[in-house]
Amino acid sequence: MNLAHTDDTQLGVFADFDPKLSDSSRNAEVLFLGNIQPDLQRRVRAQADGSHLAALDSMNLWIDTARDSLVAAIGEVDCLLFNDSEIRMLTEEPNLARAARAVMEMGPSIVVAKRGEYGAVLFTREGFFALPGFLLEDVRDPTGAGDSFAGGFLGYLDMQGTDDPGPKALRRAMAYGTVLASFNVEEFGTERVARLTEDEITERYEALRVMTHFESV
Amino acid sequence: MNLAHTDDTQLGVFADFDPKLSDSSRNAEVLFLGNIQPDLQRRVRAQADGSHLAALDSMNLWIDTARDSLVAAIGEVDCLLFNDSEIRMLTEEPNLARAARAVMEMGPSIVVAKRGEYGAVLFTREGFFALPGFLLEDVRDPTGAGDSFAGGFLGYLDMQGTDDPGPKALRRAMAYGTVLASFNVEEFGTERVARLTEDEITERYEALRVMTHFESV
Repeated sequence: MNLAHTDDTQLGVFADFDPKLSDSSRNAEVLFLGNIQPDLQRRVRAQADGSHLAALDSMNLWIDTARDSLVAAIGEVDCLLFNDSEIRMLTEEPNLARAARAVMEMGPSIVVAKRGEYGAVLFTREGFFALPGFLLEDVRDPTGAGDSFAGGFLGYLDMQGTDDPGPKALRRAMAYGTVLASFNVEEFGTERVARLTEDEITERYEALRVMTHFESV
Repeated sequence: MNLAHTDDTQLGVFADFDPKLSDSSRNAEVLFLGNIQPDLQRRVRAQADGSHLAALDSMNLWIDTARDSLVAAIGEVDCLLFNDSEIRMLTEEPNLARAARAVMEMGPSIVVAKRGEYGAVLFTREGFFALPGFLLEDVRDPTGAGDSFAGGFLGYLDMQGTDDPGPKALRRAMAYGTVLASFNVEEFGTERVARLTEDEITERYEALRVMTHFESV
C-alpha cells in the first residue's frame, strides 16, 4: 500500500477547468495548491494574492508532461509538499537531501518529502527534521493520506499565524500532518477525519511524541 | 540502494562449518547471531550459555529454505533484528505492527524492524518506538548497515548491563544503532567505522536527537 502507481489518467472536467476564486478564497492567508495541471495551479496562485504562505503538491504525470509549467509553479510558492520519489524524479537527484536542496534553488524555502508509511522529512535552509509515520495495526485506505498531511501541516501553521514560521512551529506542523494522515488511513475516504475531535488529535500528537522521544546521552 | 535483493547464493565454507566457541565467547553477556544458516545459529546459541541477551538476524533465503529451523532459532533468543520486509515475509502478515506481535509469540520480547534509509522500529510488549534514518548527503555503500545497526544497538545495551533493559535504554540503543549504521554507509566496507571516535558517535547521537525532537502541544 506504500507505493503510488497510476494505471490510467482521464483528466475529465479538469481539461477545460478555469478556476475563479471567491473574494474570501483570494484573501486566504494560507494557500494549498493540490495536485492538478500546473498551469491551473498558477492561475489559482495568481488570483490568491492575499496569501502569506503558499504550498504546492504535484505528481509524476506533470513532471513527465508539463515540467516547465511545474517548475514555474514551484517558483511561485513558499512550500513544496511532494512524495520523496517525486522530489528525486523532479530534480534527477537520487539523494533526498541533495534533491531537496535543488528544489529550494527553484524557490520554496520549505520542502516536505512525504514517505508514505515511513513518515516525512522537512527541509529548510537551516537544516532538516524527520518523523516516522504513526504506527497503526489497521490501515484500510491510503487514499488521501498526502492531502490529510498537508491539511494538518498547513492548518497548524495557519492557526499559529503564517508570517515566516520558525523551526519549532514547522516541527509541530510536521507532527500534526503525521497525525492527521494517520487518522485518514484508518477508514475509507474521509470517514474518519470527518468525525475527528480536537481531543483525539491532541492525544495522538502526544502519542507520536512519546513514540519518537529519546533522551540525551 | 534501499532494497536488498539476492542475485545468487554460494554458501562456500559455511556449508560444512561447525562453529566451536572459545570460553570467552561462550561467556559473553551479549550474543549476536548474525545472518547464517539457522541450524548453525542454534549450535552457537547452545554453546553461548553465559549470555544474558541473545539477538538474531536472518534473511529471506532461510525463511524460504529452512523455515522450521529458523522459527526454532527465533524461539531461543530475546531479540530479533530483521528487515521489515522479512518480518512480514516470516509471519505472512503485511501489517508491521501485527507482524511484530506474531514474532513475539515465537519467543523474543524485543523486535527491531530495520527499514534501511527510512530508519527502524522497536517493538516490545509495552509498545513501540520509531526513528527515521539519519539523513546524509553522501551515501557510498549500504553493505553492512544492518550489522552496524546491530553493533550499535547491542553494544550500548552491553555497556549498560543487559539484565532486562528498560524502555529508556532500549530507545537510546535504537539511536546508537541508527548512528552507527549512518557512519557505516558513508564509506566503503568498514573504513568509516574502523576509525570512528567516541566523540563523533556522541555528536551524531545528539544531532539525531535534534533532528527528531519536537515539543509538546
